[in-house]
Amino acid sequence: MSSTEFHRIARLTARFGSPPPPERGIGDDAAVICPRGPLVVTVDASVEALHFERRFASLEVLSARAVEAAASDVAAMGADFDGPGAGLLLSWSLPSWVGEADFDALVEGAQRAAERLGARVLGGNLTAGAALALHTTALGVPRGAVIARCGAVPGDRVFVSGPCGAAGLGLRALLAGRADEPALGSVVAQWRSPRARVDLAGDVTARCTAAIDVSDGLAQDAAHIAAASGVAITLDPARLPWQSGQREAAELLGVDAVALALTGGEDYELLVTAREGLRSERWTEVGEVTAGAGVWVRDGRGDAQPAPAGWDHFATRE
Amino acid sequence: MSSTEFHRIARLTARFGSPPPPERGIGDDAAVICPRGPLVVTVDASVEALHFERRFASLEVLSARAVEAAASDVAAMGADFDGPGAGLLLSWSLPSWVGEADFDALVEGAQRAAERLGARVLGGNLTAGAALALHTTALGVPRGAVIARCGAVPGDRVFVSGPCGAAGLGLRALLAGRADEPALGSVVAQWRSPRARVDLAGDVTARCTAAIDVSDGLAQDAAHIAAASGVAITLDPARLPWQSGQREAAELLGVDAVALALTGGEDYELLVTAREGLRSERWTEVGEVTAGAGVWVRDGRGDAQPAPAGWDHFATRE
Repeated sequence: MSSTEFHRIARLTARFGSPPPPERGIGDDAAVICPRGPLVVTVDASVEALHFERRFASLEVLSARAVEAAASDVAAMGADFDGPGAGLLLSWSLPSWVGEADFDALVEGAQRAAERLGARVLGGNLTAGAALALHTTALGVPRGAVIARCGAVPGDRVFVSGPCGAAGLGLRALLAGRADEPALGSVVAQWRSPRARVDLAGDVTARCTAAIDVSDGLAQDAAHIAAASGVAITLDPARLPWQSGQREAAELLGVDAVALALTGGEDYELLVTAREGLRSERWTEVGEVTAGAGVWVRDGRGDAQPAPAGWDHFATRE
Repeated sequence: MSSTEFHRIARLTARFGSPPPPERGIGDDAAVICPRGPLVVTVDASVEALHFERRFASLEVLSARAVEAAASDVAAMGADFDGPGAGLLLSWSLPSWVGEADFDALVEGAQRAAERLGARVLGGNLTAGAALALHTTALGVPRGAVIARCGAVPGDRVFVSGPCGAAGLGLRALLAGRADEPALGSVVAQWRSPRARVDLAGDVTARCTAAIDVSDGLAQDAAHIAAASGVAITLDPARLPWQSGQREAAELLGVDAVALALTGGEDYELLVTAREGLRSERWTEVGEVTAGAGVWVRDGRGDAQPAPAGWDHFATRE
């Protein structure tokens, strides 16, 4: 470890503080948590040139986004960060171009996201690296019974917590260098500043049979629930919710809004199944669970067609 | 996520299995653990061209080594992987050169280390990336009261759990392309295959006042304890334990064995302080805690001199 690392860790310690004993935060070989029940644990990575390019947003925004993406997996299990044992670990690989102001921006973004989520930063790890890589471990407290991907049964309804595909449009605008066009502002903002739906953890655990976050695209994430639950899921594009300006952005970018709503990733809304209706101000019903396998999409005549393929990080740059 | 990622995750699921309900392992947005008391949580990264070069060892060995390094931080808190809530999350960035046989070797190494440690692999994350980067989150169960860096008091004795500096010599042999020389075999093996001292967690929690793992070098890690505890630590090189062949390796490599024992990192032995003697077959007394500050090293005449600077990942390649 270098003097730079020690200096930076000292700043992290000062910034994130330490929980009251017997819990312990940054400053030892490991943090100490005192959970009083089950926890959900997950890790997610946000890697330069793969998940983002530096020109896409400020370092503060990219850092907050990495934390929100990890937190989204916590929300998808019906958990949030409110309770003993919850928190975040940040494992960052920092290229040599990351100076002290850059480092502060990364810390600021992580702290901003942690505060929004009500999460404590428990610890982490700093290394050098050729590309900026932000790995986030998230520990969450389930708000009730844990909800997984495998509980959907025929007859359940399918719901999403918000518009899907806007972030995918935002990414296309960023890749095309068109982020500054006013009509693309809202989709670019959705890519830059997604919000993990930990606010819905109580709904998920109380009322859902299966849940997943929409990180790979609605169709592909629905396929995960379908496969894990041994059911078929049919999505109805006519019922999809839209973000203000989303369809106009699709038109400007020359892409099919519905196709991108089904395949665009990284909105970090929740896709769930439930036996009965969910509160309409929070959820939109977009489909149904039936016997069978796979994901199907209703066409204009109401017939179900096989869903398009989903998001592919590895193919993003192709 | 790509079809390659899904395929690989399916193989990980098959390989690592899932714990009995209500706990859940790989396959959902997050794993579920049911701890029955405090946990220690830590994350560590092992990054190509920074912590290792591919030519230094097989991918299986490098993967096992990354897991052991993370587990070492668990051991240093007086914890191990025996109990509810303990486990590992693997967040890997895999360059395009990682083919399926390479992936299997990485999985094999992680599994071998997990089995040696008695740890379950609870989940993880796969992404692409320019360099191989293995981030490991470790959750451990303390064997008693958690031991941190801040508990050393004047009058305590200082102990190490085994030879230090051998891994540093091994790294020098690897960097010099001399790993195949028989007389350097034992130090190269120490670099390649360190073992986290989770076997000593009970000793640490029952009998130590402060503990740290020797990852940055004996002198620098002692400095962490001294600073956190507000004490001075004096190390006596004449009492250091040596690995068979270590001093001969130092001579062959033209480096000072004692200097490297004080500054060489990555042996992953434990450095602890205790009020009384620790069992001699497991621990070697190497110094004392006094009032004051900093780390001091006894010279040949018994006088205490300021300790040399420690390990620096960022300077390794310079």
